[in-house]
Amino acid sequence: MEKPSIPQGTRDFGPAQVARRQHIFNVIRRTFETFGYAPLETPTLENLSVLTGKYGDEGDQLLFKVLNSGNFLVKERRGEITPLVTADDLDAGHKAVLPKIAEKGLRYDLTVPFARYVAMNRGTLTFPFKRYQMQPVWRADKPQRGRYREFYQCDADVVGTNSLLCEAEIVLMMAQVLNGLGLDDFTIKINHRGVLRNIYQALGGEGKEADLFVAIDKLDKIGRDGVTRELLEKGFSAPTIDTLFALLGVEGDYAEKLERLLAGFVTAGVEPDGLRPTATTDDEESAYYRGLNELAEVRDLLVASGFKQFDRLEFDPTLARGLSYYTGCIFEVKINNVAMGSVSGGGRYDNLTGSFGLPGVSGVGFSFGVDRLYDCLETLNLFTETGETPTRVLLTHFSAEAGRAALPLLAELRAAGIPAELYPDAGKLQKQFKYADAKGIPLVLVLGPEELAAGVAKIKIMKTGEEKTLALSEVVAGLTA
Amino acid sequence: MEKPSIPQGTRDFGPAQVARRQHIFNVIRRTFETFGYAPLETPTLENLSVLTGKYGDEGDQLLFKVLNSGNFLVKERRGEITPLVTADDLDAGHKAVLPKIAEKGLRYDLTVPFARYVAMNRGTLTFPFKRYQMQPVWRADKPQRGRYREFYQCDADVVGTNSLLCEAEIVLMMAQVLNGLGLDDFTIKINHRGVLRNIYQALGGEGKEADLFVAIDKLDKIGRDGVTRELLEKGFSAPTIDTLFALLGVEGDYAEKLERLLAGFVTAGVEPDGLRPTATTDDEESAYYRGLNELAEVRDLLVASGFKQFDRLEFDPTLARGLSYYTGCIFEVKINNVAMGSVSGGGRYDNLTGSFGLPGVSGVGFSFGVDRLYDCLETLNLFTETGETPTRVLLTHFSAEAGRAALPLLAELRAAGIPAELYPDAGKLQKQFKYADAKGIPLVLVLGPEELAAGVAKIKIMKTGEEKTLALSEVVAGLTA
Repeated sequence: MEKPSIPQGTRDFGPAQVARRQHIFNVIRRTFETFGYAPLETPTLENLSVLTGKYGDEGDQLLFKVLNSGNFLVKERRGEITPLVTADDLDAGHKAVLPKIAEKGLRYDLTVPFARYVAMNRGTLTFPFKRYQMQPVWRADKPQRGRYREFYQCDADVVGTNSLLCEAEIVLMMAQVLNGLGLDDFTIKINHRGVLRNIYQALGGEGKEADLFVAIDKLDKIGRDGVTRELLEKGFSAPTIDTLFALLGVEGDYAEKLERLLAGFVTAGVEPDGLRPTATTDDEESAYYRGLNELAEVRDLLVASGFKQFDRLEFDPTLARGLSYYTGCIFEVKINNVAMGSVSGGGRYDNLTGSFGLPGVSGVGFSFGVDRLYDCLETLNLFTETGETPTRVLLTHFSAEAGRAALPLLAELRAAGIPAELYPDAGKLQKQFKYADAKGIPLVLVLGPEELAAGVAKIKIMKTGEEKTLALSEVVAGLTA
Repeated sequence: MEKPSIPQGTRDFGPAQVARRQHIFNVIRRTFETFGYAPLETPTLENLSVLTGKYGDEGDQLLFKVLNSGNFLVKERRGEITPLVTADDLDAGHKAVLPKIAEKGLRYDLTVPFARYVAMNRGTLTFPFKRYQMQPVWRADKPQRGRYREFYQCDADVVGTNSLLCEAEIVLMMAQVLNGLGLDDFTIKINHRGVLRNIYQALGGEGKEADLFVAIDKLDKIGRDGVTRELLEKGFSAPTIDTLFALLGVEGDYAEKLERLLAGFVTAGVEPDGLRPTATTDDEESAYYRGLNELAEVRDLLVASGFKQFDRLEFDPTLARGLSYYTGCIFEVKINNVAMGSVSGGGRYDNLTGSFGLPGVSGVGFSFGVDRLYDCLETLNLFTETGETPTRVLLTHFSAEAGRAALPLLAELRAAGIPAELYPDAGKLQKQFKYADAKGIPLVLVLGPEELAAGVAKIKIMKTGEEKTLALSEVVAGLTA
C-alpha cells in the first residue's frame, strides 16, 4: 500500500495551528466589521469564462482547472454521442484541448469573484457597498518557502464612492489589525498613481510610462544601479534618470515630502492634471496635482480621526505595486525586522467591474495575507501558547463507577462554558496525566475513591504542579472565579 | 459580452446569509469545543489516490477532478517531451484518459481526509484523538432543491477508544446544538448494528444480511408493503418477513423496547454474540447481546449526565444508515414538522484508517449538515433578523466639514467595539437615511449644522422612528448602556 500524502503546496492544519489561525482571522474580522464591512462568500468553483483573461497570461497558466464531470471526452444529447476531443486536437496541444474538457476553475483571488458578484447583483445592492471576504484561493505556482498552492486571503473593498475617507480608513484598519495582533513594528507605505504620473511628466514624457513604473517597482530589489541600467536599456536618457532619482529621493516626513515633490513638479513644469476621468466632475479638483492633493487629504482625515501612528505611515513615492489596475492611492505594509514580503496591500481602482459589463464603478480595497502574518507572528514569538485541544479541564478516574460518578460535574463544567473532558477509559492515573500533558490541558481533576467518598476533587495545575482540594459542589465556582 | 454567472449547484452568500450561517457554525463550534474536540483543517485538494475507491463507484463518478497544471498532455523531462495521451487513449474512453491528465481531486467528505490525516500523523498524535472539522465538500451531483455541488459539513470524531461515553456524548452534543439553535422539536434516533445483526439471526439467517439492511433502510420511504415486496424478491419467505416486522414493531419507550427485543431474540433462539471482533477482549461482554447491551449503557450514561430530553431520543430498530462502514451505535436526527431529510447522523466504525495502512483504530463520529439546518431555521422562521451589514450606527452629515467634525465620535464608537460608519459622501439626508434603511442599520445619528454648533447629536431609532438628542460626549455611553 502506498503511503498516503497530500498534494505539493498544500497543508494540513492541526489543532494548535487552527487555533492560531483563527486568532488572526478573528482580529481581522472584528476590525472589518467595526468599520462597517459586511461579509461575502463566493463559490470555490467559478466558470473559467469569469476567471480567464483577468490575471494576465501567467495567471491563466496558474489557474487550477476542473475537469467536466462524467464522460468529459464526448457530448451526449438525445442519445447521440459526439466526440469532443479528436486526435487533431491532441496534435494542436493542450490549449486546444482545455476548453473542450474543462469549463470550471478554482478561485484565484477574491477580487474577480467580488467584481463578478457586484455585476451580477447590481440591481439589488445598495451602494456604497462595503464587503469583506476571507476565503482560500488556489494557484498552481511552484511551491516554495512561504508560497503555497492553497492559501487564504482576507479582503475588504468598498465600491460606489470616491470619498477619500475610505482610503484613510484603510490605514486605520491596517494599523488596528497589526496592533491587535501585537505586530507593533510595522510600516504602512502609501503612494498615489497620480504622483507616479506626475513624476513621468516631470521627466518630460520621455520613454514609456509603463516601463518607468515597472522599473521603479523593482527599486527595493535591484537598487538604484539596477533601475538605472533598466531605464537606460528602455531608452531613458541619463539626465532624465538623474531627475527621476532627485524626485524619488525627496526627504522628510509625510507632509514635507508632499511639499518638496510639489516644488519639484512645478520646477519641472508639470501641469496640474486629473488622473481619473470617471472620478468626479468637481471643477476645483483639476486645479490641483491630484495625487499630492489626495494624499494630503488622506493625511488630514487621519489626523481628524485621532490617528496617532504617523511614525509608522510613510509616503513613499517609489511605491508602484506593479502594473496593476490601481488608479489612485496605493498601499503596502511591511513588518519591520522580519525577512518577509508585504503582509498587506491595496489601492483604488476605477473600473473593477468593467469586464463584467458594469463600467465606471470606482472603489478601493486591500488585502491581508494570513499565511505571511502567521509566519511573522511565529518568527517574533507573538503567539500565546496554544494547546492541542480547547479542553481546560480533564477529569480522571480509576473505574467505570468513578467515571459515572464524575458525569454530573462534567455536565456542570460544560454548562458553565468550560471545555471539559472525562478521560474515556478507566485506567492508570499516569496514562491519564500523560494525555493531559501531551494535549496541553491546563487543569486535571483527580476523582479517586477517597475523593469521591469525601465529596471532593483534587485539582492539579499542570504548569506549576500545584494541587488543591475543592468540594465537588464548589469546583465550577472555583474555576470560573 | 456574456453575462457573468456561477456554476450550477454553487451559491454566493451575501452578508445576511453569511451572518446566519456564521451563527450556525458558532453554535456547533462552541458545542464541539465544550466537549473537548479540537479543530482540524485539511486541504481542499487531495490526491486522487487518497480519494478514489473510498466512496463506491458512484462516489468515484461524483468526485471533482482537477487537471494537472501546465501542459497536461505531455511529460517533459530533461528537455525530452513524451506525449501522455494518445489517439488510442481517446478511443479507449475517458476512464483511460483520466489518470493521465488528473492526479488531484476536490475533498468529497471530511471522513476520508481525517482518516488520511490520522494515518499520516500516527506517530505524533495522542490518542484518544478528538477532532472536529467544519469545511466545504464538493460533489458533481445533479443539483436540485436542497442539494448543492459545494456544501459544508461539520464533523466531530474521536478515535482510539471504545468507551461508550463517546456515544452518549454524541447524543448530548446533538441535543445541545439543536437546543442552541432553537430547533427544539427534534428526534434523535439511535440504533446499533448489533441489533440489526440479531434481527437477521432471529430470522434464521435466511437470505442475505446486506439485502435485509438495505430493505429496512428504505422503510421510511417505501413503507411496509414496499419492504415486503423487496424482501420477497430477494428470497426471504413470508413467515420470516412477518417475524421481522414483529421485531421491528416493538413498542414502548427506549428501555421497554430494549426489553421486548431481548425477549424476542431469546424466543427466536438468537445466541449472545460479539459483533466487533477488534473491539474488546473483555470476556463478560460476550455474555450479552452486544447491541442491546451497549444501547442500555448509553442510556445509563445519559441519565448519569443529567440528560433530560428522553422524549426526543428514540431507540429505532429500523434505523440502518445504508451499507455504511458502521459497526456499533448509529445515529440520525430529524427536525419534526419540517419536510427535510436528516440534519445529522453518525455512528461507530472499527476500521476507519485501514485503507491507509493503520488497521484496528476504532472510533465514533457524527456530522451536521449546515445547509439543511439553515433551511430548517428559515422554514421555522427561527433566525433573528439580520441586516445586510454589521454596522449598528450610521453617522450622517451634510458637508465635508461636518463629516470631518464627526470623525472623533466615529473613532470613539469603534474603539468601544460598536460597528459604525460615516456615510462617505456629503449629501442629502434622505439618501443617507435610505442607505441605513436598505442595509438594516438600526441607529442613525444626525450631525447637522445646528447639532454640531450645539455639540449634540440627534439619534433616530430606525425601527420605531423614535428620536432623542444626546451630547456628543455622551453618545458612546448612551449606546453601550
